[in-house]
Amino acid sequence: MSEFSRFKAISPLDFRYWDRDASSLLSEEYFIIRKLYVEFALATVLCRRGLIDKAAFDEIAAACFGASAVTAEEVYEEERRIGHDIRALANCIQRRVSDRAKPYVHLMATSQDIIDTANASRYWQAIQNLLLPRLLELESALITIAEREAETLQIGRTHGQHAVPITFGFAMAGYVSRLGNCIEEIKALASRIRGKFSGAVGAYNALKLLFDDPEVVESEVLAELGIKPAEHSTQIVQPEALMRLLHEVVLAMGIMANLADDMRNLSRPEIAEVGEAFGPDQVGSSTMPHKRNPIHFERVKSFWKIVMPRYTTLFLDQLSEHQRDGTNLASSRTYPEALGYATFAAHEAAQAMRGLSVYREKCQKNLELSRGSIMAEPLYVSLAVHGHPDAHEKVRQLTLKAERSKNMLMEIAEADPELKPYWEKMTARQEGLLFSLPSLSPSLYTGIAAGKARKIAAEWKEKLGLK
Amino acid sequence: MSEFSRFKAISPLDFRYWDRDASSLLSEEYFIIRKLYVEFALATVLCRRGLIDKAAFDEIAAACFGASAVTAEEVYEEERRIGHDIRALANCIQRRVSDRAKPYVHLMATSQDIIDTANASRYWQAIQNLLLPRLLELESALITIAEREAETLQIGRTHGQHAVPITFGFAMAGYVSRLGNCIEEIKALASRIRGKFSGAVGAYNALKLLFDDPEVVESEVLAELGIKPAEHSTQIVQPEALMRLLHEVVLAMGIMANLADDMRNLSRPEIAEVGEAFGPDQVGSSTMPHKRNPIHFERVKSFWKIVMPRYTTLFLDQLSEHQRDGTNLASSRTYPEALGYATFAAHEAAQAMRGLSVYREKCQKNLELSRGSIMAEPLYVSLAVHGHPDAHEKVRQLTLKAERSKNMLMEIAEADPELKPYWEKMTARQEGLLFSLPSLSPSLYTGIAAGKARKIAAEWKEKLGLK
Amino acid sequence: MSEFSRFKAISPLDFRYWDRDASSLLSEEYFIIRKLYVEFALATVLCRRGLIDKAAFDEIAAACFGASAVTAEEVYEEERRIGHDIRALANCIQRRVSDRAKPYVHLMATSQDIIDTANASRYWQAIQNLLLPRLLELESALITIAEREAETLQIGRTHGQHAVPITFGFAMAGYVSRLGNCIEEIKALASRIRGKFSGAVGAYNALKLLFDDPEVVESEVLAELGIKPAEHSTQIVQPEALMRLLHEVVLAMGIMANLADDMRNLSRPEIAEVGEAFGPDQVGSSTMPHKRNPIHFERVKSFWKIVMPRYTTLFLDQLSEHQRDGTNLASSRTYPEALGYATFAAHEAAQAMRGLSVYREKCQKNLELSRGSIMAEPLYVSLAVHGHPDAHEKVRQLTLKAERSKNMLMEIAEADPELKPYWEKMTARQEGLLFSLPSLSPSLYTGIAAGKARKIAAEWKEKLGLK
Amino acid sequence: MSEFSRFKAISPLDFRYWDRDASSLLSEEYFIIRKLYVEFALATVLCRRGLIDKAAFDEIAAACFGASAVTAEEVYEEERRIGHDIRALANCIQRRVSDRAKPYVHLMATSQDIIDTANASRYWQAIQNLLLPRLLELESALITIAEREAETLQIGRTHGQHAVPITFGFAMAGYVSRLGNCIEEIKALASRIRGKFSGAVGAYNALKLLFDDPEVVESEVLAELGIKPAEHSTQIVQPEALMRLLHEVVLAMGIMANLADDMRNLSRPEIAEVGEAFGPDQVGSSTMPHKRNPIHFERVKSFWKIVMPRYTTLFLDQLSEHQRDGTNLASSRTYPEALGYATFAAHEAAQAMRGLSVYREKCQKNLELSRGSIMAEPLYVSLAVHGHPDAHEKVRQLTLKAERSKNMLMEIAEADPELKPYWEKMTARQEGLLFSLPSLSPSLYTGIAAGKARKIAAEWKEKLGLK
Repeated sequence: MSEFSRFKAISPLDFRYWDRDASSLLSEEYFIIRKLYVEFALATVLCRRGLIDKAAFDEIAAACFGASAVTAEEVYEEERRIGHDIRALANCIQRRVSDRAKPYVHLMATSQDIIDTANASRYWQAIQNLLLPRLLELESALITIAEREAETLQIGRTHGQHAVPITFGFAMAGYVSRLGNCIEEIKALASRIRGKFSGAVGAYNALKLLFDDPEVVESEVLAELGIKPAEHSTQIVQPEALMRLLHEVVLAMGIMANLADDMRNLSRPEIAEVGEAFGPDQVGSSTMPHKRNPIHFERVKSFWKIVMPRYTTLFLDQLSEHQRDGTNLASSRTYPEALGYATFAAHEAAQAMRGLSVYREKCQKNLELSRGSIMAEPLYVSLAVHGHPDAHEKVRQLTLKAERSKNMLMEIAEADPELKPYWEKMTARQEGLLFSLPSLSPSLYTGIAAGKARKIAAEWKEKLGLK
Repeated sequence: MSEFSRFKAISPLDFRYWDRDASSLLSEEYFIIRKLYVEFALATVLCRRGLIDKAAFDEIAAACFGASAVTAEEVYEEERRIGHDIRALANCIQRRVSDRAKPYVHLMATSQDIIDTANASRYWQAIQNLLLPRLLELESALITIAEREAETLQIGRTHGQHAVPITFGFAMAGYVSRLGNCIEEIKALASRIRGKFSGAVGAYNALKLLFDDPEVVESEVLAELGIKPAEHSTQIVQPEALMRLLHEVVLAMGIMANLADDMRNLSRPEIAEVGEAFGPDQVGSSTMPHKRNPIHFERVKSFWKIVMPRYTTLFLDQLSEHQRDGTNLASSRTYPEALGYATFAAHEAAQAMRGLSVYREKCQKNLELSRGSIMAEPLYVSLAVHGHPDAHEKVRQLTLKAERSKNMLMEIAEADPELKPYWEKMTARQEGLLFSLPSLSPSLYTGIAAGKARKIAAEWKEKLGLK
Repeated sequence: MSEFSRFKAISPLDFRYWDRDASSLLSEEYFIIRKLYVEFALATVLCRRGLIDKAAFDEIAAACFGASAVTAEEVYEEERRIGHDIRALANCIQRRVSDRAKPYVHLMATSQDIIDTANASRYWQAIQNLLLPRLLELESALITIAEREAETLQIGRTHGQHAVPITFGFAMAGYVSRLGNCIEEIKALASRIRGKFSGAVGAYNALKLLFDDPEVVESEVLAELGIKPAEHSTQIVQPEALMRLLHEVVLAMGIMANLADDMRNLSRPEIAEVGEAFGPDQVGSSTMPHKRNPIHFERVKSFWKIVMPRYTTLFLDQLSEHQRDGTNLASSRTYPEALGYATFAAHEAAQAMRGLSVYREKCQKNLELSRGSIMAEPLYVSLAVHGHPDAHEKVRQLTLKAERSKNMLMEIAEADPELKPYWEKMTARQEGLLFSLPSLSPSLYTGIAAGKARKIAAEWKEKLGLK
Repeated sequence: MSEFSRFKAISPLDFRYWDRDASSLLSEEYFIIRKLYVEFALATVLCRRGLIDKAAFDEIAAACFGASAVTAEEVYEEERRIGHDIRALANCIQRRVSDRAKPYVHLMATSQDIIDTANASRYWQAIQNLLLPRLLELESALITIAEREAETLQIGRTHGQHAVPITFGFAMAGYVSRLGNCIEEIKALASRIRGKFSGAVGAYNALKLLFDDPEVVESEVLAELGIKPAEHSTQIVQPEALMRLLHEVVLAMGIMANLADDMRNLSRPEIAEVGEAFGPDQVGSSTMPHKRNPIHFERVKSFWKIVMPRYTTLFLDQLSEHQRDGTNLASSRTYPEALGYATFAAHEAAQAMRGLSVYREKCQKNLELSRGSIMAEPLYVSLAVHGHPDAHEKVRQLTLKAERSKNMLMEIAEADPELKPYWEKMTARQEGLLFSLPSLSPSLYTGIAAGKARKIAAEWKEKLGLK
């Protein structure tokens, strides 16, 4: 019944981008395993507090945990009969235990106690074991490039146009910094997601029947999974903590998509500053045998286009009437998809960055493309500090003149009689900087790019414990 | 390799809401079947135009179509080797045919010729065979209720507050009309989605090598699938036609979600005008044995919360650089999910509406709740037409007085000396209408609700050919 | 009170992108003018049907229409007192008329009769008088370029990489076609938006008190504004018709954003196939005097980034409980913003396209960049039709070899012994096509690009009545 | 020129929801004031570091700050001439100063140094002075109700159906907790937004011409506005910090919208547990004089429907090519709108909650509606702990029997022979709890609702320093 070809699936996450590791933590099967674990945690606490004896506990434990535990198939089979997923799960456990143990299965718990706590637990695990390792892989690849290309000259581009020079490593350091911050936020926010065991409406009604310290009981059950309770819950846990975490995951995907856009643009044949690795048997087009497409970066961007809009589903689920309405029944089941895609995206991006070729000569050649006009800024600043009252406008006109005459900006500037007095006041460094293009001098006008690239790379290696 | 338990899936569409019918048209397997069919269509035209003989055609046909056709597994296996999905598909076909036929497999086609045309074809089929039948089921259920409850009095509610009376059937007729219009739009828009066979950049470059009438060749290939070509295409088909169709599908889901909200609210125990059917073994809560939750309507709303945000992915994919960028590689593979959820939602809504109980006495009782204040409008209108210069404000003050004194609005109004002259001018009908509450008279103040309910029901039955 | 500097505004639409024409149709002031016009239409029908005499009608008409009509300020002042916008409007009218006319002001109307009808009317006007003229300006500019550059060779780009040749005009024709279709849809959908005059809950309760043909009365009132009634309404008009229209407006903005992306990329200095016009005094950067940024195209894209997400507000407003909930009170007031931005975007895009420089030599130079590898497709097709059983793979390997050796693909191909027999079978045309690069032959491998550019341009000029 | 009636505005934020306080911090005028302040900060540092003398500084200071500073009108006028907003601002300053001071105006700064820093500063101010005070007003109102109604019995509602009892104050405490957390996050995140003064591409190119410690210079300039620099910037500041802040603002609006939904539902006439305050002159409907609509809560929800979708604009602006593309030119100017609406929403919600009537008798009456079936949970738990092996299913059947027979659940349960042995084992407390309905006993089955309401209220009063 439940066996089927993955090609019968509709979501690309379940055939094309299906991944054993992701499935092992994000699938329905694992969700049921985690829910059983919450029932197990409850039995543990009931036993410790003397409501059930060791023998009854062992029965329940065996049904919830280990080789002979209740299976996803059984639960779905029972649900088909009674139309309720968690009652089905409880029934399946009860069937495996003696009449003595039966009454204590799921006792006092409402479905969402099990579901929200199991979710908190599996999301935490997926963050730790799936997403963070992949994001760190990518961060590590970015750091490597930031350091290796710290001195590689590149034209800085704003509005798609040539601005002033930077280094390739400096540009990478920006991503190191942004992604590093995201990683730290994800870690922090993952530790802040919460579970609950406060019953049908959050007031511990059933727990209070049997215990005088229901909030402590809740903490004890959740502690078995390494999870803490929310400050207040209704039937469901407050949604905001999980939203903050998943929002940060979307931010991480946005950073990867931004990186992917840059790499896609830099690999245009006219720019050609980078190239994605390409396998010897790899085909780029079914009809154009010469094609080399940056498909890994395209896919990273495409995953963002899938996941980013879906965040709105969380905005919608944030609103739940009274102690809970049921309109998140289906929608909340789609949250793991975001983690699946994010993991895949990080992996793709890491691989693509590790295999990236940086073509330094092309970087240099592109820098020289504008015949020195990119030195308009230092020229204007130098004139200004030597007292030219309208230096920006003056230089703007010189660049227009250079463009029309196809001469180098500096030649035009040198020849301009109005500027003569200012040249005399220039320092050696300013002159050296301004007049040495196109030989090699923009290398002098990169500000602190190289140093900053190295500093940021070093700091994040340290902070994140990367080698 | 490809066999796996559906519980290893991550998307709820592939385990919880997985459905054989939906899968048969929306799965990856069927997508590959449709792509093979486009290759088959190409061979058909090449044969008809004399480029290949019948024998070669038969070889290609057998590889593309029928019991021994290329399988999804083979294609994925080959893609793993060469990293390109459609070239993999072409290679798989080529392997099954003789050297004579090999060169003509996929000849002149670019991947997107195959993909976009296969998509147009399978979306069209899914609309016809999956979604429209389910929407018509729902429309039919709505029509039945609109007719059956055409006279059932109900208080009209605006801002959640009691306004003036309508009938239950009239409210349903609104949904009949809105959904009916959507169904007609979906039909029309489905017939307007387009395929393409214009090659790598849309200019028929390769086709033009061999044919003088490449646009005619394109039409012939597509005609084999019942699809027409776009007026202009790049590597990909113009996105807007598909967007209009899927937007309309989201609109249909919005109408269903709106209906679901109404039903959820009317089934609140304090209102209790309707009730969802509930099975004898059905469980409403894992801890509260008495619960009866409107889970079918909740699920319908929840599906909307899944699908509506995802429409933004289409907005993002609308922008594709130059003759095509590849950032829709993954995202465009998620479009069938919308059809899957919409189909499921329509089915759930249809079932829930067919099993719906309408509690007429409770409708009547709710109508009487406001002690006649809902007749404030006809009172004000009647005073106005008899010349009261400030009738709205006068009646507003009477309703405040009625509220404070807990008397019926009409008793207060009758006793008011200022209004005396106006009573004398009232027509019998106006008086009868105004003074007979709470016995039965709001039944007189329902405008043309009952008639309109019947008229709309009849018209849509006719238009859509429903019995 | 209401006079203030536009720089006190918060929305950029009201200071930076504020425009007299847009404001004249989309502002709050005009909305009130249109609402007064609906009240005027009601009085017209009441007079025609004999409920009020000509004198009373004239009084109401003067209050609703013309130089001495009620003003926005008055209405807001009255609303501050009573907390209801439409009752305030009605009160303002009533104050200006005699006691005889007073009762007939706003008689039988619910607020939404006025609001929804006024909205339908002003949206229709804004589409006709603001948006369509600007979109036609842009369409016209696109057609001009499509024709002028019909023969201008350009490399087709897919995945940002060089594919096979097209012409510049052919690429433009794609936008002509897509935008042309949008324009036609917008026209059609604008004629399908609807108003209502069916009262508080849509059942004509109040109208039925006075008329036996309330639906006819509704049609008569709406006809005064050139608007038709919805098939069924509640307190509000069915939302889907307006959604379809505004969705199409967002589609039009998506097409413009797509065009803007292409132009931004083509104006990168490394590609440099186009350039945005730049004024002699225009400054590109406050610190880099040489900068020439494609800010008009950037702005067009940026407007899309503003408007596209806001469409989700319409998806949310589609759901309104029962006969109407009030949660669209504020949100529905933001819809005109979309029309404002769309109008602005179309104007910017039209201007930028009219001033666009196309650099034909650079187009040609870029075409030659890949040393003939863009002819891999015709080479493979030619080999295939001459019987090579694995032509695609063979050519793929040749392109790798060409890349490594930095030789032209065709030289490599010609020297390859395995291919010898196929050369002998080639037609003159195929050979001419394949071997003449880089001189001028890709001009032969542009399929039907030039002809199609001209055909589409001509067709849309005809369809849209452009000269 | 710039004076116009606010009714000529298109955005409702600039006429209907325009507010002097919001405008004073969020308008274009104030944005320009803040940008001038950044120029002033630059001059301050240049003076302190000896590049300009006190006299030149005083000239620049006077142009940037105080009564005779450059105005928004001037800047817009100059921009019209040169087409660049920040160069226009710099030109306006330069015009007011002597030739000696001119060169130092805006020296080394790129536009975004000014813009991003001015934005960081004004957003910080708007959070501190506008939004947080309003959110604290609301939090305070919620705390008051949580304490006052800590003991007010209310039925807990899940899926819109009656679950088990809570107290009104307990439900409010949930909002106290959620909103409290949001307020703390907003505070923390506001202190983390960053500015920049790192020049055209973020590498301090121009600064490095004149200073050996450009990062220290950056810190000094920003410190004048109380802002810190980003760890790394390109032409623009890293977007994520601002996104986190605005995301949290949207979360706060989601919490308010959720609260508004609850209040709207509880004020339905059939439920009637709360009522919004209504002024003596307030009109609810232009045609139904009796209407009392919860318009303040509706507006709060409606503001969320405006703002939530717009967050997607920030997701889109997160991606900026290379050192910056210009596609956020217009879109980034809309961010203040979110703060404007959020402030308005918080104010509306606070007012509505302060004026809220809680109808305790109706709460009690609704609790009794289900004839004891809400005690099914404690009945099942009690049977279970006394050893009933299938207590949930047993009680489920009893509730069906009670429903059919219209008897109280407990009467049915008491009469059931199978349950006899369990009654004998019950503790006095359990029996008292179960059998005292409908008199007053659900008051015993509220878990720790009242205590928790008080505890949470007290804690947040303490944490947020509310009196």
